[in-house]
Amino acid sequence: MTLNEVTISRAILEEQHRALIDHLEMDAAVIGGGPSGLACAALLGGRGVRCALIEKKLSIGGGMWGGGMMFPRIVVQEEARRLLDRFNIAYKEFEEGYYVAKSVEAVSKLTAAACDAGVEFFNLTSVEDVMVRGDGRVGGLVINWTPVDMAGLHVDPLTMACTYTVDATGHDAMIARMVERKGGELRVKGESFMWAERAESQILAHTKEVFPGLFVTGMAANAVAGECRMGPIFGGMLLSGERAAELVAERLGR
Amino acid sequence: MTLNEVTISRAILEEQHRALIDHLEMDAAVIGGGPSGLACAALLGGRGVRCALIEKKLSIGGGMWGGGMMFPRIVVQEEARRLLDRFNIAYKEFEEGYYVAKSVEAVSKLTAAACDAGVEFFNLTSVEDVMVRGDGRVGGLVINWTPVDMAGLHVDPLTMACTYTVDATGHDAMIARMVERKGGELRVKGESFMWAERAESQILAHTKEVFPGLFVTGMAANAVAGECRMGPIFGGMLLSGERAAELVAERLGR
Amino acid sequence: MTLNEVTISRAILEEQHRALIDHLEMDAAVIGGGPSGLACAALLGGRGVRCALIEKKLSIGGGMWGGGMMFPRIVVQEEARRLLDRFNIAYKEFEEGYYVAKSVEAVSKLTAAACDAGVEFFNLTSVEDVMVRGDGRVGGLVINWTPVDMAGLHVDPLTMACTYTVDATGHDAMIARMVERKGGELRVKGESFMWAERAESQILAHTKEVFPGLFVTGMAANAVAGECRMGPIFGGMLLSGERAAELVAERLGR
Amino acid sequence: MTLNEVTISRAILEEQHRALIDHLEMDAAVIGGGPSGLACAALLGGRGVRCALIEKKLSIGGGMWGGGMMFPRIVVQEEARRLLDRFNIAYKEFEEGYYVAKSVEAVSKLTAAACDAGVEFFNLTSVEDVMVRGDGRVGGLVINWTPVDMAGLHVDPLTMACTYTVDATGHDAMIARMVERKGGELRVKGESFMWAERAESQILAHTKEVFPGLFVTGMAANAVAGECRMGPIFGGMLLSGERAAELVAERLGR
Amino acid sequence: MTLNEVTISRAILEEQHRALIDHLEMDAAVIGGGPSGLACAALLGGRGVRCALIEKKLSIGGGMWGGGMMFPRIVVQEEARRLLDRFNIAYKEFEEGYYVAKSVEAVSKLTAAACDAGVEFFNLTSVEDVMVRGDGRVGGLVINWTPVDMAGLHVDPLTMACTYTVDATGHDAMIARMVERKGGELRVKGESFMWAERAESQILAHTKEVFPGLFVTGMAANAVAGECRMGPIFGGMLLSGERAAELVAERLGR
Amino acid sequence: MTLNEVTISRAILEEQHRALIDHLEMDAAVIGGGPSGLACAALLGGRGVRCALIEKKLSIGGGMWGGGMMFPRIVVQEEARRLLDRFNIAYKEFEEGYYVAKSVEAVSKLTAAACDAGVEFFNLTSVEDVMVRGDGRVGGLVINWTPVDMAGLHVDPLTMACTYTVDATGHDAMIARMVERKGGELRVKGESFMWAERAESQILAHTKEVFPGLFVTGMAANAVAGECRMGPIFGGMLLSGERAAELVAERLGR
Amino acid sequence: MTLNEVTISRAILEEQHRALIDHLEMDAAVIGGGPSGLACAALLGGRGVRCALIEKKLSIGGGMWGGGMMFPRIVVQEEARRLLDRFNIAYKEFEEGYYVAKSVEAVSKLTAAACDAGVEFFNLTSVEDVMVRGDGRVGGLVINWTPVDMAGLHVDPLTMACTYTVDATGHDAMIARMVERKGGELRVKGESFMWAERAESQILAHTKEVFPGLFVTGMAANAVAGECRMGPIFGGMLLSGERAAELVAERLGR
Amino acid sequence: MTLNEVTISRAILEEQHRALIDHLEMDAAVIGGGPSGLACAALLGGRGVRCALIEKKLSIGGGMWGGGMMFPRIVVQEEARRLLDRFNIAYKEFEEGYYVAKSVEAVSKLTAAACDAGVEFFNLTSVEDVMVRGDGRVGGLVINWTPVDMAGLHVDPLTMACTYTVDATGHDAMIARMVERKGGELRVKGESFMWAERAESQILAHTKEVFPGLFVTGMAANAVAGECRMGPIFGGMLLSGERAAELVAERLGR
Repeated sequence: MTLNEVTISRAILEEQHRALIDHLEMDAAVIGGGPSGLACAALLGGRGVRCALIEKKLSIGGGMWGGGMMFPRIVVQEEARRLLDRFNIAYKEFEEGYYVAKSVEAVSKLTAAACDAGVEFFNLTSVEDVMVRGDGRVGGLVINWTPVDMAGLHVDPLTMACTYTVDATGHDAMIARMVERKGGELRVKGESFMWAERAESQILAHTKEVFPGLFVTGMAANAVAGECRMGPIFGGMLLSGERAAELVAERLGR
Repeated sequence: MTLNEVTISRAILEEQHRALIDHLEMDAAVIGGGPSGLACAALLGGRGVRCALIEKKLSIGGGMWGGGMMFPRIVVQEEARRLLDRFNIAYKEFEEGYYVAKSVEAVSKLTAAACDAGVEFFNLTSVEDVMVRGDGRVGGLVINWTPVDMAGLHVDPLTMACTYTVDATGHDAMIARMVERKGGELRVKGESFMWAERAESQILAHTKEVFPGLFVTGMAANAVAGECRMGPIFGGMLLSGERAAELVAERLGR
Repeated sequence: MTLNEVTISRAILEEQHRALIDHLEMDAAVIGGGPSGLACAALLGGRGVRCALIEKKLSIGGGMWGGGMMFPRIVVQEEARRLLDRFNIAYKEFEEGYYVAKSVEAVSKLTAAACDAGVEFFNLTSVEDVMVRGDGRVGGLVINWTPVDMAGLHVDPLTMACTYTVDATGHDAMIARMVERKGGELRVKGESFMWAERAESQILAHTKEVFPGLFVTGMAANAVAGECRMGPIFGGMLLSGERAAELVAERLGR
Repeated sequence: MTLNEVTISRAILEEQHRALIDHLEMDAAVIGGGPSGLACAALLGGRGVRCALIEKKLSIGGGMWGGGMMFPRIVVQEEARRLLDRFNIAYKEFEEGYYVAKSVEAVSKLTAAACDAGVEFFNLTSVEDVMVRGDGRVGGLVINWTPVDMAGLHVDPLTMACTYTVDATGHDAMIARMVERKGGELRVKGESFMWAERAESQILAHTKEVFPGLFVTGMAANAVAGECRMGPIFGGMLLSGERAAELVAERLGR
Repeated sequence: MTLNEVTISRAILEEQHRALIDHLEMDAAVIGGGPSGLACAALLGGRGVRCALIEKKLSIGGGMWGGGMMFPRIVVQEEARRLLDRFNIAYKEFEEGYYVAKSVEAVSKLTAAACDAGVEFFNLTSVEDVMVRGDGRVGGLVINWTPVDMAGLHVDPLTMACTYTVDATGHDAMIARMVERKGGELRVKGESFMWAERAESQILAHTKEVFPGLFVTGMAANAVAGECRMGPIFGGMLLSGERAAELVAERLGR
Repeated sequence: MTLNEVTISRAILEEQHRALIDHLEMDAAVIGGGPSGLACAALLGGRGVRCALIEKKLSIGGGMWGGGMMFPRIVVQEEARRLLDRFNIAYKEFEEGYYVAKSVEAVSKLTAAACDAGVEFFNLTSVEDVMVRGDGRVGGLVINWTPVDMAGLHVDPLTMACTYTVDATGHDAMIARMVERKGGELRVKGESFMWAERAESQILAHTKEVFPGLFVTGMAANAVAGECRMGPIFGGMLLSGERAAELVAERLGR
Repeated sequence: MTLNEVTISRAILEEQHRALIDHLEMDAAVIGGGPSGLACAALLGGRGVRCALIEKKLSIGGGMWGGGMMFPRIVVQEEARRLLDRFNIAYKEFEEGYYVAKSVEAVSKLTAAACDAGVEFFNLTSVEDVMVRGDGRVGGLVINWTPVDMAGLHVDPLTMACTYTVDATGHDAMIARMVERKGGELRVKGESFMWAERAESQILAHTKEVFPGLFVTGMAANAVAGECRMGPIFGGMLLSGERAAELVAERLGR
Repeated sequence: MTLNEVTISRAILEEQHRALIDHLEMDAAVIGGGPSGLACAALLGGRGVRCALIEKKLSIGGGMWGGGMMFPRIVVQEEARRLLDRFNIAYKEFEEGYYVAKSVEAVSKLTAAACDAGVEFFNLTSVEDVMVRGDGRVGGLVINWTPVDMAGLHVDPLTMACTYTVDATGHDAMIARMVERKGGELRVKGESFMWAERAESQILAHTKEVFPGLFVTGMAANAVAGECRMGPIFGGMLLSGERAAELVAERLGR
């Protein structure tokens, strides 16, 4: 008779194995589980795109958990209020056009929305490199367990194929930088000084395909473009995630 | 004219300041944002108890994010299925009586539920000590920013008063151990070998007030009692959190 | 059309998944891939016992790679020469009754023999705890990825059931110590002074079942018994591994 | 009835909250609490400028505590003796024109003077970036808790607006380097060889506005200019702080 | 002709050498530069006692710099208000009997007062051990540079003789623990739970000679006695420092 | 009478000393014990070339132990199947032309084959530099114990002369980079994006003498050429090792 | 024709190999290269005892290099002046009976004297354990390279036999503690408070055989006896080394 | 009555203080206590030059202690044999023209010779920078305690003036690199491949004044010149040290 401890182990292994096998080939991969990546993935999932969100840390949420200077509140301005409503995040008007929400609620509601939209999450998973074949476009990801790197081990990666990749890794713009470093025709200019207003207003223009198959969103979009940085104001992040989702979904014909 | 960057900063500071001042005295404090702590806090909030969840890490969710061995799935057995339903966590039957859910979804839905129930979250906040005055009961918490300790700095703490404290810190049972170390009449026996079935069946009996003013829930309850450990099966955790919430709410007359 | 990178990933995932599922319940688990563990596993496999060798490091071989003081040679005395022959390890007589072999060859030939005997290897896998249920015997292992611990992460383990467990973890006797620490009636005395002759002559007597379901072999056997330590002489290690295999196989009726 | 522990916490939180809110917009911010920064802030405060001193470490005083090679004495030459008198720092003539003081006394008296002049101190606070908006001048600071960085956490910053910024961060000239790195027209040449006499005599000429809105003082002034370094002689530091205060106050019309 | 860089070096070396030689034998040594140690040293110096304050860190001030939870404010109650006045520390009444001061000002004014009273500071200096000769009393200190220990070096210490030693090392009570560990008849009970009121009211009773030649003050006094801890309220600290100074001065007949 | 512990020590010291002296001058040195290095060394040994394999780690096997993402399986395609057979590595067809083997078996069988072919292994041995004399070719290796570097010690190296050197250090191409850094006419372009098919098909062309006396094999060959990277597919590695062995043996006239 | 680089390597390897083989069995081993160990070894060598000094660090000299608090001077009193003369160490009378020498000179002259007396030095060599066989006496040492431990590697040790062992490891008394920990009838009481006079006067009485085959000298002698500690006064150290040498030489009949 | 512990401390402090004051202005400073620096300092001292050797580590001897690969033997060739004789270092002919000595003896005899020649040693002392005044020559050193840097502290340095500086810091050529980095007209080419013969034969030509006031010796000379490296052969080191001493002494007219 099988022990129930074994059943528990088998259940976890079988289910996750299937999820992983099912995502070795997919429509879109979003790299980075901060606000723009979560918004993008949730909206892609909502449009029927088979997509996964890959996060190098154990927890999802990125830099949003800590609010501003560890005071766990975030601010969203008028333009993005409808996304707070859409994701069911409570808020309060602080001054006209400035809404304050709890950072913990914002993270959990965005993540929950992505789960409800059928997004598969691969956390503790690092993207080491991208796959670029003869067609000269980013066509997949070279992934590994994050703890392999944290522990300084030498272990080979595996590969996932995806039609589109969305770099939502924040101001590091890690995927874009990989492409740049390996010789792709892409230049990451790095984020400029803090100027929240300008950064918020320009981010949608910077949210686009920057290399065949590779889109950027959130601060990664501003970093590639050399745009200003913002602080703990997240309207632009959410709108940029939404825009990236629209662009990718259109390409996929959804 | 005030710059909008300043407005954003002020919004965050004012809102969080108010939240902190409002919780310097409260009904109940739950320490630890894993599954039992989240369930407990969500259900306390739902019964109208003014309560905060204090988590030492930046992210909420504790050990649940990683599922079993980094395969982000968890298992819940029949007895706790209704709590998955209550918290709106999707699941799938693996074998009769064993339900598998995604760990990322479970964390985010539990957190979202606690937010909706009005729980205030203080993350990156460590409990250094407890307050025990002349009445011989745990009447408050001595808190500090977690990074103070991570950075090896010497900075004094602040204090929050609470009528009841729930130790949901997992198998370390950190609050119970503080009481034990400082001389309170409480013995933390430490968790025993793995025996998931037994651990799940006994956890409700161990969920109780172990020192005046101090309740234990989840693996902290089993650790105090010297009970067996379980693995990535979370039904008992959720049920224990529910039980702790009921016990505390009853005492408070809610 | 599937990319061949995806086929490679799928091949690895499918094969290893099956191997892991197949060993969630097994006859015997050997913990530790040093000389005694490898000899034991190879001989168990040779007798048709379904068995796995679990090693916390990335590489198999334990302390044998470095020979003595990083001079990669080992010594085996007359009594164990037949095992060098059996495992096809070349040697040279140094003085009467003392044979010298290359440590790299010894490790690789022992490992190869275990592979040929059908042993399944789980490397980078730590045993965090053991499973002891109502029957009071060690009935399984609580395992996790080693890098989880190296990286200081908090991730739940999984469980493997095994009829017999062989502690081949060297002088730490890690499995025996877990049983001792959690309250099992077992005392690990720790290895005594260096006295190679005595250590070699007594090791077979100490190779035995020390707790229901748990056998010890190699330096773990001497450590539990408080026996002397030896140096880079490996005859006793191999003979002890052989003895442990015989004892376990007999119990299993092979 | 409120416990007095809660009153203590509330007192601290309310007072510091007000201080922080009051300085989200200010006349001048001095970055770095070494001798030149302290002198500058004390003299700015004395002229009625609303100003804060931001220091990344827990303690104020910078490199002055250790004197020369951990022998806690400093030297000041004739030209700056009047500032020792002004700040009430005891000294002793060593040779004609060379005065020796205790480094601990120098730090504490300078800090005390700044406090008496109404300067607000924000210690454990790092300046991560500066704010440069459409007017092309440094108009504010992007700040964070220092332990956030020490602990390797990812948490968003907040922003303070200030009319003038004084870089008193020593030979790193950290604020000037940020401006340089992000593309401002400013070049930090780095300090040259040791030549105390020259360094002391030139520092006042280098104490100036180096980018719209940004002044440099102390070793940061010499580092921007590629000037020589000095050792534990602090007259130039104090005079440079005084000069920076005069220049900023004049601009502000005080 | 001597270069002025050499004059500066010589000035520092000569002055500090003399200070050190002058304090190889002294009346009293205060170990630890937190509030109680600073108050004690300042008041000892004021009574004409030749005394040094020895601090292991580079900066003086101990845990006071950070206020409560990095909010740099401290609280003092009515009983100790006169000491704020005496040390010229500005404060503000928060509620009746509770006064709030800036932590940076408190540290610098206390340090400045000690300097004015002629106290010699030895910072970056660790007390490794105490000297106890045939008379069975603490008669001196075994000191070393703190960086020697931080860098893991093996360097012998030097010795300072003092008639009385005051342990002001906070809740570690490091000097008292050395005496306890080496076999002196002294027991350090360790601080108990937080209960600010009680801790404040009992601290004067615990401020006393706990071993021949050794006095304790501040949290070290409460830690030896097993008394409760307090938080960022510093009245008791200052009063205890004052008491310790009175007791030591009386013994010395000043 | 000599103790047997001493005999054991002497046996190890004498045998390894002879091995080291015997290899101070040799035909070929292979640097790096991953799959291509092992295959190369085994085949060189099989052709009668006196050769050593130098590995900086304690264990032999390099990045092969961990399979793909810690799932210890590797894949080999049709072209290299005959090498699996030659080295007696069991495999299983996954899809047409794709064979899966156990990574642990592959490592141990390759190592065993190299041992059987008479290759001498120097593990824990780092190559710090190469010897290039007046003839302008790599003529030897500057070696040291790896732990010397790991422990941050300053100890001089020793030298081994070899007619040919094979760089099998993987994508770091460490030997080639040393030559490049010290001014040899060699450029290491670094590996490009992942494209397994192309990388596998081009590797043989890149396996060649890249500087007089220096051959490259495995990923080092691709890295020097700026070729694409592959993942856990090892056919090209083995074939490249075979090719390198053929080229070196031909030069040596074997 | 052999390259001269190879000749150099062979010269070093052959000579040191012979030295090591020659000392696998010896009369006496001194563990620890501080002043007492060096004096003991030099004097043993001078009496014709075949002896080695084993030092775990790279350099010989132990804690003497740093003098007192990094001021590289040491003091010796009248009783030991003749040993300064004997070892040709220059000194200067500071006060009657107190002689000051340079620490660097003291170390180098003691080491030079031991070299001249034919002592063999094994530096970077750690003693991991001792050999105690059926006769119940310390009869040899279990040694390893120190960097093996510094690098956290698992490598087996080798063994050296010696008729007598002298523990000169300072206040850690490492060899004596090994015997104590493994169950030998020996108690290491640990050094007491600083009292230089007493420590110096008692050290000769404590310099003796504390376990069959094991002598203690220098601070190790005082540590075993629970005697007081001294500071940077080295007369007792040298006299104790001399006494240990006499005792061991007598036993060996030299 | 003064305690003898105090006398010991005073003796050390007074003597070392005098030594330091006496060397704030000197003829020559040798930086680095390896073989070339020691030989240079010993020979400078022998010619009546007032000189100090400054070593950043606690022990003197540099990379010579470890011989080759931790086998503590060094080799010297015929040309330098007379220096072994001069410094009284025992040796043995290995092959014609190759002499082997013990590394421990070589270090201690060289150091002893420097002590006998009146060289003052400042160990644990780092050279942070050099002094270059209006005359454009290196005229002094900016020094600090090494542990200050090891402990990551911020403490100002002191200055020593010297007429000539000898960089004997080995292949890092640290002083030359400081001059290069700060803009002096000096280029450090870095050492080339290993070619012992050539390196030995060219080193004397490279031993010279490379910047006004700055000489290089030993591997620093070869590193500045881009010359080949050698291994554990030390004849060139000693001869280079001798040459540097001659050049400096001539300049000083000794």
